[in-house]
Order: sequence, then structure tokens, then C-alpha cells
Amino acid sequence: MILRKIFNPFAVARYMRTELVVSTVISVSVYFLYHNQHLEKVSLPFSIAAILGSALAIFLAFRNNNAYSRWWEARTIWGGVINNSRIFARQIIANADNAVIIGKASKQQVEAFKKELIYRQIAFAHALRLHLRRQNSWEELKHLLSAGEFEELSKKANKPNYLLQNQGIRIKEGMRSEILGAFDNISLEPTLAGFNNFQGSCERIKNTPLLRQYHFFTKLFLLVFMVILPFSLISDFNKMGMPILMIPLSILVAFVFGVMGKVGEVNEDPFENRITDIPMTSMCNTIERDLKEMLGENSLPTKLESENGYIY
Amino acid sequence: MILRKIFNPFAVARYMRTELVVSTVISVSVYFLYHNQHLEKVSLPFSIAAILGSALAIFLAFRNNNAYSRWWEARTIWGGVINNSRIFARQIIANADNAVIIGKASKQQVEAFKKELIYRQIAFAHALRLHLRRQNSWEELKHLLSAGEFEELSKKANKPNYLLQNQGIRIKEGMRSEILGAFDNISLEPTLAGFNNFQGSCERIKNTPLLRQYHFFTKLFLLVFMVILPFSLISDFNKMGMPILMIPLSILVAFVFGVMGKVGEVNEDPFENRITDIPMTSMCNTIERDLKEMLGENSLPTKLESENGYIY
Amino acid sequence: MILRKIFNPFAVARYMRTELVVSTVISVSVYFLYHNQHLEKVSLPFSIAAILGSALAIFLAFRNNNAYSRWWEARTIWGGVINNSRIFARQIIANADNAVIIGKASKQQVEAFKKELIYRQIAFAHALRLHLRRQNSWEELKHLLSAGEFEELSKKANKPNYLLQNQGIRIKEGMRSEILGAFDNISLEPTLAGFNNFQGSCERIKNTPLLRQYHFFTKLFLLVFMVILPFSLISDFNKMGMPILMIPLSILVAFVFGVMGKVGEVNEDPFENRITDIPMTSMCNTIERDLKEMLGENSLPTKLESENGYIY
Amino acid sequence: MILRKIFNPFAVARYMRTELVVSTVISVSVYFLYHNQHLEKVSLPFSIAAILGSALAIFLAFRNNNAYSRWWEARTIWGGVINNSRIFARQIIANADNAVIIGKASKQQVEAFKKELIYRQIAFAHALRLHLRRQNSWEELKHLLSAGEFEELSKKANKPNYLLQNQGIRIKEGMRSEILGAFDNISLEPTLAGFNNFQGSCERIKNTPLLRQYHFFTKLFLLVFMVILPFSLISDFNKMGMPILMIPLSILVAFVFGVMGKVGEVNEDPFENRITDIPMTSMCNTIERDLKEMLGENSLPTKLESENGYIY
Amino acid sequence: MILRKIFNPFAVARYMRTELVVSTVISVSVYFLYHNQHLEKVSLPFSIAAILGSALAIFLAFRNNNAYSRWWEARTIWGGVINNSRIFARQIIANADNAVIIGKASKQQVEAFKKELIYRQIAFAHALRLHLRRQNSWEELKHLLSAGEFEELSKKANKPNYLLQNQGIRIKEGMRSEILGAFDNISLEPTLAGFNNFQGSCERIKNTPLLRQYHFFTKLFLLVFMVILPFSLISDFNKMGMPILMIPLSILVAFVFGVMGKVGEVNEDPFENRITDIPMTSMCNTIERDLKEMLGENSLPTKLESENGYIY
Repeated sequence: MILRKIFNPFAVARYMRTELVVSTVISVSVYFLYHNQHLEKVSLPFSIAAILGSALAIFLAFRNNNAYSRWWEARTIWGGVINNSRIFARQIIANADNAVIIGKASKQQVEAFKKELIYRQIAFAHALRLHLRRQNSWEELKHLLSAGEFEELSKKANKPNYLLQNQGIRIKEGMRSEILGAFDNISLEPTLAGFNNFQGSCERIKNTPLLRQYHFFTKLFLLVFMVILPFSLISDFNKMGMPILMIPLSILVAFVFGVMGKVGEVNEDPFENRITDIPMTSMCNTIERDLKEMLGENSLPTKLESENGYIY
Repeated sequence: MILRKIFNPFAVARYMRTELVVSTVISVSVYFLYHNQHLEKVSLPFSIAAILGSALAIFLAFRNNNAYSRWWEARTIWGGVINNSRIFARQIIANADNAVIIGKASKQQVEAFKKELIYRQIAFAHALRLHLRRQNSWEELKHLLSAGEFEELSKKANKPNYLLQNQGIRIKEGMRSEILGAFDNISLEPTLAGFNNFQGSCERIKNTPLLRQYHFFTKLFLLVFMVILPFSLISDFNKMGMPILMIPLSILVAFVFGVMGKVGEVNEDPFENRITDIPMTSMCNTIERDLKEMLGENSLPTKLESENGYIY
Repeated sequence: MILRKIFNPFAVARYMRTELVVSTVISVSVYFLYHNQHLEKVSLPFSIAAILGSALAIFLAFRNNNAYSRWWEARTIWGGVINNSRIFARQIIANADNAVIIGKASKQQVEAFKKELIYRQIAFAHALRLHLRRQNSWEELKHLLSAGEFEELSKKANKPNYLLQNQGIRIKEGMRSEILGAFDNISLEPTLAGFNNFQGSCERIKNTPLLRQYHFFTKLFLLVFMVILPFSLISDFNKMGMPILMIPLSILVAFVFGVMGKVGEVNEDPFENRITDIPMTSMCNTIERDLKEMLGENSLPTKLESENGYIY
Repeated sequence: MILRKIFNPFAVARYMRTELVVSTVISVSVYFLYHNQHLEKVSLPFSIAAILGSALAIFLAFRNNNAYSRWWEARTIWGGVINNSRIFARQIIANADNAVIIGKASKQQVEAFKKELIYRQIAFAHALRLHLRRQNSWEELKHLLSAGEFEELSKKANKPNYLLQNQGIRIKEGMRSEILGAFDNISLEPTLAGFNNFQGSCERIKNTPLLRQYHFFTKLFLLVFMVILPFSLISDFNKMGMPILMIPLSILVAFVFGVMGKVGEVNEDPFENRITDIPMTSMCNTIERDLKEMLGENSLPTKLESENGYIY
Repeated sequence: MILRKIFNPFAVARYMRTELVVSTVISVSVYFLYHNQHLEKVSLPFSIAAILGSALAIFLAFRNNNAYSRWWEARTIWGGVINNSRIFARQIIANADNAVIIGKASKQQVEAFKKELIYRQIAFAHALRLHLRRQNSWEELKHLLSAGEFEELSKKANKPNYLLQNQGIRIKEGMRSEILGAFDNISLEPTLAGFNNFQGSCERIKNTPLLRQYHFFTKLFLLVFMVILPFSLISDFNKMGMPILMIPLSILVAFVFGVMGKVGEVNEDPFENRITDIPMTSMCNTIERDLKEMLGENSLPTKLESENGYIY
């Protein structure tokens, strides 16, 4: 996620280089043909650019809205992962601590149980992040799971789902050993099901790109518009007596429409390990810090801060 | 679902052939009448095209938005089928495994129970897919159900609903035989009800086309616009001294508006066994793979990948 | 609901007759005054039509979006009635069948109980349909209720609500006689509450028309636009040398904007026993067929199909 | 809420008098300066009106959409109050009646309990209405509460909340005296919480006006547009040879944009005891009629009908 | 939150000073170059401003919609905090009072328990407000918590979360000492989870600014538009014979578009201790007043009113 408010103009220019180059080449050619070669017939009425521009605007608005919706939905889902992790930890701690006081289990058993479940929950968040970004650094989870479970996990195709399955089994075992009460699952189960739903919703966004038809035709119409524009403008500029000004202004208009297309494009896919991702690494850090604080641990991992105006 | 980012221009042209042919015939006729036959009176003011174009744009934007909403809702519902299948399997496994440990049922009984319910759940996903695509290859479910149940199923009008009804009955039997606990249905019932709701929501989208009024009048207004356009443009192009250019540019504008109409149209109906469907076959494969992995099976079905940039 | 894709042009013309007549009379008058009577001063600049047209477009877009939202919400609510009916039947059957096996009730008692509750549920769907369409053919419910209950029902002001109240009472009686289990109401109650909510949501749409302000001013602005249009166009058409063409094109533009207004208007109210209603009769038929199949009945009512491209 | 479909033109004119007067004064002045005083330099290019008109349109569309959303959300919340009242009454009746049959309480006790809770629920709806409209006629609730409770209520700052608090306490007492079953609160509590949420949601809409920034600047831009418009139109009308026509058409366009602003404005606040309110008095009447019918009472209050096309 | 309906024109001018200064400098320079220096070639066709204006409008509309959605979502979440606080207090009071009557706990114990939990709930609201506004005046919570808990709280990184964790633990203790019933947690747990979700949702809005891309490019395009505008207008104004009028009208148009950008900008971030914040201080006051009234306290804190048309 980008946090800086001012972008480097060179970075922007580099980012938009294809659009700028295409637009420059066409504008200069049109100017040259029209003015230097006196091929005045190459000009088109402005109405053509206007009508294509408004069609393009509908596509761009549609795409920007839907791309942003996808990004914001992804962020909201991960917000849900944070909230639900805190709820889960709160439920486990309140229920398990009770078992010590009423003498159903020893302090040690309960502390081990709490730590195991809550660490696995932290591991789930990390696993979901790696799963969505298609990264393989599973060793990041090693410190959160027992050696056996980590071993078993590495064999599984759907790793986050495996961790949730283990949570379900361990909760039942907690109830059997009376660390958890008989009714506690009525509260814990919706929390667990929440994680299943969050995982599935992220996979939906990951695996279903914004309809390719919109992608392809937005790009195509943008190109068509950039090509038509200098032809449509040259005649008006010529009438004003400054045909050369058509070149920078064609490029400017092409740049504006090009930015509108690019901004939508990068927000479509929020799980790609790019600076425009939702900041999953930072959110995993929040979860790890909050849950360890809830367990009463003192040495929390350092809070991740943005670097150079970016946060991952 | 289309995954490829670049479309074949010939495929696009073939796809838009009606619009292209209509537009070409009209533009050429108008040019011929105007320029060769000197029937200059056939031209119309550009304002007519502008006002019709903006009315058409409202209809096209409305339709694109609603068609895409239907498609994305369908995808979200099926995402829910995936999530809920994992939740269901997790609940069944955690609850039933517990029964072995506390000695209420033998390992064998429990394994059979888990497999039966989870295989039936996989069968439900396949059945919903066939039901929505109006396909009859019910033998695809045969390996997931007992011979008797498959026999019974084939007599039913509403097959996915029959499978859910059986799940409800079998869960009650599981509780009776203490494979499931007394409170387990409090968690399982909302999961089952979720499947009923997903089925019904898919049927709603399947059985209720986007209002035909919008379909018919969008097509009609598009045709009217394509007819009016060359008449509205010819005079401006003539003034610029290149009336012949009106032909390719009329076709181009008609193509752009035609694409906007077509793109909306194909997304309206996401369950038609077309390349623009939501990828139900692939999602059923995900469910089968994930649930079998949760059961601890080793030979999972091969993951379905996209072919030629399409996934079904 | 309209299922046909092609509309009869005469039906469309008849449907739009007011708009067409008004527009024709005004256009012809303007042409006559301008061209035959040489009252050239009646013309207006096109900018007036453009500015009014864009204000009208905002109103029309607003209204089309909200009218369609109402229609689709109504359809979604009734989809919920279908889903919830299946859930209710599934819950009743699974729970009651269990009572026979564990010896709490006889097969006969249970069959009677299941049939009574599920038939009453079918009756609820029919009653809601009649209630919303303000029809009085309550005898359509007679075969689904006992004579006494039907008698009592006919005295009630809010008939669907009375049926739900009876379901609540009968479920309590089922629990008392142990046909239902002690916890079964935890699942059944949300299902019943769902029906209360669906009824109230339909009544909301029925009793609260889309704000009359939008209705009245959309109609008024449409009329103003239709009146202003020929005055705004005549001068441009005269310049092109074909003032007579202004008449058909004014009518065409008025027709396009008129259709946009009319399409929104008919979708506003989805429960009026018109061809543009949501198909409640057909959905009640689906509920009756599905629930009777779930009860194991063999003679299901015939599936209602669309007639002449319409389904009620 | 307005139910009439045709508005009185004089009422509309009176309603829009500020806009009409302002617009008339400016148009006439511009005409006088331009034409009679030959101050031709006061005219502005039409492009200024066009660009301001489109900025204004964005603000008006934004405001109309959000104002209508507030109104419709308020109506939906009150629809929820109706639904939830029926659910609450159904739950209380089914649960309490059961206590008589199983001999836990006498018929009299149960009837008194049912009547008390359901009457208090009716009182809650009336109290919420008075609370939102900031009316003080609390005596309207007197017939629904005991003398002591009414006395106590009148001392409370947040009256609807006090009634809900009493419901909670009385339900616990019902459970203690076994008029209600041990698990009945699992169903009743979400119903009560629903009322808390409905109250709070209404207060949110009541206490948070649509952002004043939009209110102020919409009004300001509307005024600017109305002032600029005659200057922008006079030159075009002069060219057509009928400058005097600029006056009525400026007023007409100002009226159209003024209506768009006014329509949004009145829908922003749905709880102000105006004809554009959501019909809370009528909805309270529905609740009182339905709940008394559910209690088996015969003399229901008369159904409130619209008067002169308005319903409160 | 701003409650006043009329804004001070000087405040508005000061607020928009950058836009006004930039626009004035450019317009005056263009006028000077064009008219006084006879550099007539600096003018641009109006079409350039029109096309850039419409692209800018799409960005501004997008941003206004999403900024307002964020603001309104924040307000809705805090509305939820109010509702849920009342629900929580109602549940605690009804459940705990019952314990006195059935003799499980003394009046004193119960009063202390109620006060502790409900005061902590008030503290949670204040803590969430300070946490979101990044303020450190934690002593505001001192009167609501025991000395020990306040001490402990001040060591925690995530303070609101710590208070919720304590609520969970204390509820379990209430159940153990039978001040709360065995099933009461089934109702209390979703209420507590609601608070976790509200906190997380606020943090999402706080920590995730509206995408910076939109922020930066809206500002950039606004600047470009303000620069291009006088060049695009000067020629038309010159034709009308009043080129000097271009200056005020350029500034006016720039002001209108500038306001549209600014209004969106301030609503993006609703938790910044600015006058455009959602009124969290006032809402905390509502919670404190309502919850203390529910506890039966007589001296409620004074209701916070708006000052000078602002409420915090």
C-alpha cells in the first residue's frame, strides 16, 4: 500500500512510459503530416474524439469502481482476520483461564493449551498471506507450530485450511479435557467458520480476475482514443494559429486518460506482492503483536512501519 | 471464465460480425448517397447522434453494471459453496473423531460416517453445477454416493435439494448413535442452511434473466444509433474535405458501442456452459480436492488448469 | 415477468402511445409554424435541449436504478421464501423422523405432524402472494389447511402472519409431545423469523412507492423536454436543408427518452398482478412441488411454464 | 409520505418560490441590460454555463442518491420494527401458551404476562416515533403501560431504551416463574437486540445530517448557476432573433435544476413531522393492529388511511 | 461534524486560498499575455478544457463517493458502538438482577458487578475514541476503572482490546459465581464480539487512507485543469468582446471544481480530531449518559451540545 502523498514525477513518467511514447509518436506524426506536409485532409472532426472519449469514460469509470471495490473488499476481509483473531484469542483465554480456577485443569496445562491455539492462529494469518502471494517461505511459520505439525503442514496442498482443521480438532480435545466448557464451542465455532469464509473470500478475489473483457477492451479503446485524438484536435489548433501546441496537449490528455486506466489496473489484484497490495505483512505483524500481548507475553515483535512511504 | 489477457482480433471480429456488417452497409450507403449521388439532404445534425448516444450510454452503463453484478454475485455464491463445504467437513471431522476417543463409536464406524457425509457434500457441489447448467450427466456423481442413494436420486426432480435433505437426516442419525454430540447440530444446521440458500440464490440468477425490457431496448437503441450515426457524421467529414473517412470512423464508433453492449450481454447469465460462465467445473474440482485432503486421502484428483486461457 | 426477447412493435407503439402522440403533435406544429408559416422566430438554441436533456438523464438514471433495485430486491426476498421453505421442511422432516426411530412418537403421528406443518408452509407462500397482490381467492389455500384453521384464517386481517403464528404454536406442541427435540427450536426459530422478515420486506416495497416526487417530476421534465425538443432542433435541420426530417427525429428522440421513463416505471411495483410482476405464482408452484417431493409425495402439481413469453 | 401522483401546480410554484423569484429577477435584468440598454458586453459564452452545469449535476446526483438512501434506510429500519414486533409477539405467545398446557402457570397469569409484554412492545414503537420526531405527547402511551411504569418512564431521558430494558427484566422474570422456558431467551434476546439496533440506527440518521458541506455548496452552486445562466444564454437567443424568449427558458432551466436540489433536500431528514417523513404514525398503527390481533383481541384500532394523498 | 447550514464566506475563501491564488495568478497572466501583449497564440480550443473537465469530473465523483462512504461507514460503526453498549448493559442488568431474586448473590455483590462491567464498557468507548484520534489523555478513563486495572491498562499497547479481554474474563467469573446464568454467555458473547469488530473496522478506516493514487492524481488533474482553463476560455470571451470577464469566471470555475475536490478530501479521514470528524466525543457522552441512566444513577453527565455549529 502506498502511504506517501506526493509521487516522484520521474517514477510516474516511467510508470506511464508506454502511453507517453505511443501518444508522442502519433501526435508528432500527425503534426508533421498536417503542417509540414500540408496533408490537411488527415484531420477528423472533434466530435469523433468526444464520442469515443465518453464511451471510454464509461469503461474507465466502471473499471475504476470495480477495481477499487475488489481492493477495499480484500482490505475489509483482512480487517476481519484481525478482528476475528482477537475474538478467538479472547474466547480461548477467558474460557481456559476459568478451567484453572474451577480446578478442572492445572495452570500449566491451560497455559500450554492457550499458547498452542493462539500461536496456531497467528500461523494461520501468516499462512494465508503466503498462500495468497504464492510465496514458499513456510519456514516463517516454524516458530509458531510444533515440529510435528510443521512437518505435516508442509505435505498439505491447502495449508491454511489444514491449520483451521487442527483448530477444530484441538477445540474438541479442549472440551473433552474440560479446559473448555461444554457450551464454549457455540461461541468458538462461528469464529472458526469466520476464518474459513475469510480464506475463501480472498481466494475468490485472487483466482477471479476482473473480467478480462473489460481489461482487454479498456486497453483497446484507450489505444484507439490516443490514436484518434491528435487527428481530432489538429484542425481546431490550426484555426487558433498554433498547431504545434496540439502535440503537448494531445500527450497531456492521453496521459490523463492513461492514468485513469492504470490506476484501476493496479488495484484489481491486491495479493501480488507489489507496492499496491493490501499490506498483509503489516497486518500479520499486528495480529502477532496483539495476540502475544493478550497471552501476556512481554517481548512483542517490533511494529512494522512504512518505508519510503510504502507498507507491505 | 476467460483468463487470457489478449484476444484474437479475428475472434473479436467474428464475435461482433452482426454489428460490423450492419454498420458497414449503412455507412457505405450513406456515403454513396451523399457523395456519389449528391443527395446532400440525407445528412443530419450531429446533435441528434450526441443526444441518442448519451441516452444509449445510460442504458449501456446500467446494463453493464447489473450484468457484472449478477456475474460477480454468482461467483461469490459459489465461493460460499467452497467455504461452506470446508466448514462442513471440518465440523463433521472434529465432532466425529471425538466420538472415537471418548469411546462412543468405533474408528471404522466413524470413518465410514465421515466419508459418507463428506462425499455426499462433494456430490452436492457437482449436482448443483449440473442442475444449473441443465446437464444430465448424473453418472459423474456415482462414485460419491451409495448405489441405493444414487438410484433414489435419479428419480427426484430437485436433485441437489434431495442430497441436502439426506444430510439433515444422516446428521440426526449421527447424533442418535452418538457419533455426533448433542449440541453439534447447533453448528451444523447453519452450515446446511447455507447450502440451501446458495442453491436458491443460484436458481434466482438462473431463472430470472436481467429484465428483458433492458435487453430489447438496449439492442434497439444500439441499432438506431448505428443507423443515425453515418447521417450525423457525413456533413462534418465533408467539411473537413475527406467524406470517405466517415465510413471507417462510423464503423469504429459502432464497434465501440457494440462491444459495450455485447460485453454486458454475455455476463448476464453465468451458468450456461459457455466460456464466459463462472468456472463451476474448476470450483467443484477444488471442493473435491480440499475435502478429500481433509479426510486424509492421498490420491487427490488432478487440479484443473486453464486451457488456452479459458477455465470452465 | 417477461421472458420473450423480442417485443411486438405494435405492442411497444401502443404501450408508448401517449408519448408518441404528444411528440408527433408538437413536432408537426413546430414544423408547420416554422416552415409553412415562416414564423422562424419560434426556434430555440440547441443548448436548451442539451441542458434539459442532461438534467432529465440524471432523473431517469436515478429512477431506473432505484426501480430496478426494488424489483430485484422483491425477487431476492421471494427467492428467500423458496430457500427458507426448503430449510423449514428439511428441519421438520429430519427432526420428526428421528422421533419415530427413538420411539417417542408413532409413524402415523409423525407423518401427520410433518404434513400439517409443511402444508401450512406452502399455504403461507400462497397467502403472501394473495396478500401482496390484494387478491381475495383464499379458497386456493383450502386444500392445504384443516377446515377449522381455514375458517379461523378467513376472519383475520393479516392472514400470512396468522399462519406463522400457528407454526410457532404447533412447533411448541411438537416439542411438548417430543416429536421435536428440546433444542430443535434453536434451529427452527430463525427459519420462522425469516418468514416474518420476508413478509415485512415485501409489505415495505408494496406500501412505499418510489418517492412520488421522482415520479411526478420525471414525468413533468420528460414532457417539458418533448415540448422543447422540436423548437431546439428545427433550426439545425433547416440549415441542413431538410427541415421536414426534424419531425421523425424529434419523435425518435422523444420515444427513446420516453422508453427510459416507462421501463423504470413498470419495475417500481413488482406485486401488482401485471406481466412485469415478479413471478410469484410460478414461485409458489416451485415451493409446492419441492416441499411435496420432500414429503415423499408422488403426484406433484405440474410445473408452471411461461405462456407467450410471460410468466406470472 | 406523499402518495398522490399529481401535484398541485400552485403548491409546486409556492414550494419553489425562492428559486423562481431569484431566477426571474436575474433573467429580466439581463434581458433589460442587454437588449434595452444595448449593453451587449454582459453576455458570456455558453461553455461557462455548460461546465458549471455539469459540476452542479455531479453534486445534485450525489445528493439525491444519498438523500434517498437515508430515506429508504429509515423506511427499511421501521419495516424491521414492524417485522421484529410480530416476531417478538409470536415468540412470547407460543412460549407462554405452552406454560399453561404443561401446567407451569395459570391461564390468567399467562394472559396477563402476554398482554403486558406485547403492549409494552406497542408502546416502544410509539415511544420511538415520538422520540425521533421530538414530540412530547407521551400520554399516547398511557393506555399501554401500567400507571407505575408510565410514571417511571416520564422521568427517563431515553424513553424507548427504558422500555427495552424493562422487557429484558420481565423476560428474565418470565423464565424464573416458568412462563417462559429455559432456552426461550436464546430466541428472544436477538429479537430484543434488534430493537436496540433499530433505535440506534434511527438516531444515527436523525442526529447526523447529510454532510453540511454538500448542503451549503449545492445551494451555492445552484445560485451561481442560476445567475450565470441568463448571461450565457442571451447571446444565442439574440442570434435566433428572439432574445425575449431567454427569460422564460432561463426560468425553466433554473426551475428544473432547483427541483433536483429541493427533492434531495426534503428526503434527507425522514423524521421531522413533515409530509415527506416516513409514515411512522401509520406504521405504529399497523404494529398496534397486528399485535392486538395476535393477542386475540377483537376491537382493533381503525386502520389509518392516507388523507388528501398524504400519510404520516 | 459541522452542523451549521451557512458557512462564513471568509472562512471558505481562506479554506480555498491555494486554489484561489493559483487560479488568479494564471488567469491574470493569460489575460495580460493575450490582451495586453497581443500574444493571441496562447489561446487553446475550448474542447481541451471540456475533455479534461470530464476526466476530472469522473475522478472527483469517484473520490467524493468513496470519501463519503468512509465517513458514513465510520459513523455507522460508532452508531453500532452506541447500540451495542445499550444491549450489553441491558443484558448484564437483566441477568444479574435475576441472581438477587433467586438468591444466588447478594444485592451488593450484584450492584458492584453491574457497575464494574458497565463502567468498563463506558471506558471502552472513551478508549476507542482516544486510540483512533491518537490522543494520550488516558486519565479521562480513570474514574471508570479500578486503580489496579487503570495501572495495568497504561502498560498495554492495544488499550481498547485489553478492556474487552477483561470483559470476557469477568463474564466468565460472573458465571462461576452464578451472578450470571449458565446460558447467558450465548447472548453476551456476540455482543462482545461486536465490539471487537467495531474496533477493527475503525482501525481499518484509520490505517488505510483512500488510495493515494486517487489523492495524488485528483490534485494533479485539478491543477492541470486550472492551468488550462484560462487558455481555453480567453478566445471565446474575446469573441464576446469582454476578455477581462474571463478572469473572474476562470476563478469561479476553478473554485467550483476546487471545492468538489476539497469536500471529498476532508471526509476521507473521520478520526483526526478535526471539525469534519465524526462526533466521537459527543457519542461517548451519549453512551455514558444512557448507560448510567440504565444503572439507575441520578447525576448524569451534562449532554454535550454543538458549539458555534460544530460538534466533536
